[in-house]
Amino acid sequence: MVDVSEIQETVEFERGRPDIYGAAHPKALLRAIQEDGDYLKDLSNQHVITIDQFEPITLLQLFRLAAKYESNPDRFTSPLQGKILISAFYEPSTRTRLSFESAWHRLGGDIMSITDRSTTGIAKGESLADVGEMFNNYCDCVVLRDNKEESLHQMMDTLRVPIINAGNGIDEHPTQALADMYTIFKWRPDLMASEVPEYERINVGVIGVPGRMRTVRSLLKVFTKFSSAFKKITIIHDENETDIFSPGQREELEDAGIDVNVVTSLEEVICQLDVVYINAIAWVGDSFESHGSKFHLHKDLPFKENAIVMHPLARGEELDTNLDETHHNWYFAQARGAVFLRMALLTCMVQRTSRVMDVI
Amino acid sequence: MVDVSEIQETVEFERGRPDIYGAAHPKALLRAIQEDGDYLKDLSNQHVITIDQFEPITLLQLFRLAAKYESNPDRFTSPLQGKILISAFYEPSTRTRLSFESAWHRLGGDIMSITDRSTTGIAKGESLADVGEMFNNYCDCVVLRDNKEESLHQMMDTLRVPIINAGNGIDEHPTQALADMYTIFKWRPDLMASEVPEYERINVGVIGVPGRMRTVRSLLKVFTKFSSAFKKITIIHDENETDIFSPGQREELEDAGIDVNVVTSLEEVICQLDVVYINAIAWVGDSFESHGSKFHLHKDLPFKENAIVMHPLARGEELDTNLDETHHNWYFAQARGAVFLRMALLTCMVQRTSRVMDVI
Amino acid sequence: MVDVSEIQETVEFERGRPDIYGAAHPKALLRAIQEDGDYLKDLSNQHVITIDQFEPITLLQLFRLAAKYESNPDRFTSPLQGKILISAFYEPSTRTRLSFESAWHRLGGDIMSITDRSTTGIAKGESLADVGEMFNNYCDCVVLRDNKEESLHQMMDTLRVPIINAGNGIDEHPTQALADMYTIFKWRPDLMASEVPEYERINVGVIGVPGRMRTVRSLLKVFTKFSSAFKKITIIHDENETDIFSPGQREELEDAGIDVNVVTSLEEVICQLDVVYINAIAWVGDSFESHGSKFHLHKDLPFKENAIVMHPLARGEELDTNLDETHHNWYFAQARGAVFLRMALLTCMVQRTSRVMDVI
Repeated sequence: MVDVSEIQETVEFERGRPDIYGAAHPKALLRAIQEDGDYLKDLSNQHVITIDQFEPITLLQLFRLAAKYESNPDRFTSPLQGKILISAFYEPSTRTRLSFESAWHRLGGDIMSITDRSTTGIAKGESLADVGEMFNNYCDCVVLRDNKEESLHQMMDTLRVPIINAGNGIDEHPTQALADMYTIFKWRPDLMASEVPEYERINVGVIGVPGRMRTVRSLLKVFTKFSSAFKKITIIHDENETDIFSPGQREELEDAGIDVNVVTSLEEVICQLDVVYINAIAWVGDSFESHGSKFHLHKDLPFKENAIVMHPLARGEELDTNLDETHHNWYFAQARGAVFLRMALLTCMVQRTSRVMDVI
Repeated sequence: MVDVSEIQETVEFERGRPDIYGAAHPKALLRAIQEDGDYLKDLSNQHVITIDQFEPITLLQLFRLAAKYESNPDRFTSPLQGKILISAFYEPSTRTRLSFESAWHRLGGDIMSITDRSTTGIAKGESLADVGEMFNNYCDCVVLRDNKEESLHQMMDTLRVPIINAGNGIDEHPTQALADMYTIFKWRPDLMASEVPEYERINVGVIGVPGRMRTVRSLLKVFTKFSSAFKKITIIHDENETDIFSPGQREELEDAGIDVNVVTSLEEVICQLDVVYINAIAWVGDSFESHGSKFHLHKDLPFKENAIVMHPLARGEELDTNLDETHHNWYFAQARGAVFLRMALLTCMVQRTSRVMDVI
Repeated sequence: MVDVSEIQETVEFERGRPDIYGAAHPKALLRAIQEDGDYLKDLSNQHVITIDQFEPITLLQLFRLAAKYESNPDRFTSPLQGKILISAFYEPSTRTRLSFESAWHRLGGDIMSITDRSTTGIAKGESLADVGEMFNNYCDCVVLRDNKEESLHQMMDTLRVPIINAGNGIDEHPTQALADMYTIFKWRPDLMASEVPEYERINVGVIGVPGRMRTVRSLLKVFTKFSSAFKKITIIHDENETDIFSPGQREELEDAGIDVNVVTSLEEVICQLDVVYINAIAWVGDSFESHGSKFHLHKDLPFKENAIVMHPLARGEELDTNLDETHHNWYFAQARGAVFLRMALLTCMVQRTSRVMDVI
């Protein structure tokens, strides 16, 4: 006879365990800045294309709103009621698509998904400008991921609703970088101050090739917005070439007052790093290029005591699962926080901030 | 350093500009007919299969409801609350699918999409009659597009919820024709009168092959419902054959009292046309046939002064983008109005008119 | 001229006809058991993996809740408001997917669908454990169908939201079996008693190969939970082999006190059967195996007077359409009831029973 309670033990699960790794509850960030919705106005009539377009003060308020959502995950269920999102993922991605769609649903909105480019008029020879004009009739917001970098800009010619770049070719992935900066500020809210004492500033190691990875490209740009938080950015790569930056990339950081270092050995620098950011796989065109494949983060590396590890996920062998149960693991918190960051951004873009601000 | 305000200029967009091209605001149509919900009753227990099934008086009330929705796009957010739509697009189409799905979402309903015929039981040898019986359990309404003309009729054998023909093979595309007639009436509400003076009636040019294009097939049928609006329909085609009509098609128009003319030269007739309707690409079976590919509408043709151009979209080279900024452009208004027309039709079909009529 | 009323006759449909075949209205089941929500508590922190995990008393309350939903199909529109389901069907299935999605929508929840395994991180080398960790951030519940039996268990390692096995390889399909048992109890509520007189117990014939079909595997398990309802289970198969059971399958039934008989001739036994359950097509791996293909149920077989026929659908030639209009047809009621059974199960799993119980 089947022992039901024995079977039940194999199928039971726990819903929440205290989230030690990542301090999900962002109260500290909420206390560190005062809410001021005025600075979110910029977000209500701009497409989200590049990190370059944002003022730091706007981003601080955006992070604060994200923290408000993360502190009260079940409270705000209706800001996007009546709003429709078109979720257009011509380049495959379940993770980013679900992150956006979850954010939109959590706030009470409706979604129409397009995952196959060939069913859009494009297969019938329709221009992307016409696809943009079509979207104007059907939705209030568009999220687009496409391995063809230009698709986004062609649609922008005609769009009269906001579009978010969810990753275009190797160009940028702005919301990922915003989510990453939000994660860093949740970890260290003191870094949001306009003046951060030298000894408090952080050393960040980025494993990857800045010129070829859109995640890294956007990440370095967001670092320049908050330059006083950083002492040094160290790029760790395994390429033979010396050309790992795209034109101007390194200079942007240095002009913002951030030291830049480039090495090919992780062991050489890991004990100095406060943040270790790894993203070994890059989607380029229609396939993967493996950058940084010789690097392998695992729990026995000589990490700095309180160092945190970040990875935009999905991960492969470069990020060992034995790090998951350590206090260095902030990559799960990073993924979770990304939903709340997107909730904040989407709320602003479709002009529904008045439904969630304390003072309007 | 990045100049943020310079970047911001490249990413800003405008939400609404006055819709000069197409007079979106359909007040004139609302004033031209009085609301009478009784005439919508026919729509509550019929599948939408062919234009043939509609009484003109029902259509006038349908157009009035569409105009009511278009005049107040944010007012009616809940008529379809609790209703589920199955959106089954076995023949690829993003435009028509999003048009229907947007309409259903705008009214507060829920949607389940099927875009791959092979995942339905059909791949397992299931009959379409059984698929219809299955749908009865899962939804309140079905929208179907299929290049196999018979699919619709096989499902109708067992369906106990309404189904809309969103395009079946080369047979019909009734909601497109309804949206097109709605557009013409928004442009000229006086044409809705039961008696239209001869000199007010319009000349319509249709570029295409009526026997082979479902859009044109349904369009000509809807013209016969409102024959007093038309002086003459001119078919402009580039086929070598003389057989451009399917059996009875030309006669239907002539029996309704509308003159029919057939030419192969656009230049010959364009200066007489009040409406120029073009639809050069036809989806036949599993590929495209290009009909009317020698025709090219552009702004320097000798259009009649107040002529309007219509195109169900997606467009290719046959409709030049240089017409977009002219007052002849009513094709964008046509696409926008189609969503409101579908909202009106869907409301009636699932018996929710009582939630939107002024007098019940 | 088109005769509109003639055309209208061809497109009219009836919404409801009295459901003679299957007695949809489950009042008798509601009266047969008293509501007691305490017994549903088990369902609020368990993944739904195998029939083995359920106590009979929990299932009786589950069936009662399903009957409550089926008796009042439009009453409970908001128990799942604010809850998000991820519907992951890596093995194609429209029927089961729509059944679950319809259930979730009926109760007011939101859905994100994944139908293509290759767009999930899996294509990028992501582990299923990581996919589970990802799902924790995006939803409140997961439904998974996969031809790889192990996928489910790999995700369970990290999931902190409940997952339902909607069919994994040839292993199990628990919710189908629960829906089937619910159907039998709606037909004969007296069989739910703890003591069922011998002469009332039923003979069930199952056409299929228990060792190879997940539907049958789960069905036999649920029979053991309510063994006092059954006199005998007769397996009817057409395989040459003698090994039609998987290890322990036959013994589970016999240990529960149910006689088991195995034959290869349907004609031999059909006049004794109260329930004839057929499921001739099995999805194994990436293709179909046809089991029981020599069997053909049709209305002229010598059925017992009040015998009912069940089939999880989709059906092929093994179940003749000429049975549809007979009183033996309980397979349509089976499909309809499955939606309500899933509504009941999902409500319990996401801890929303308090919104629908009479006494909390």
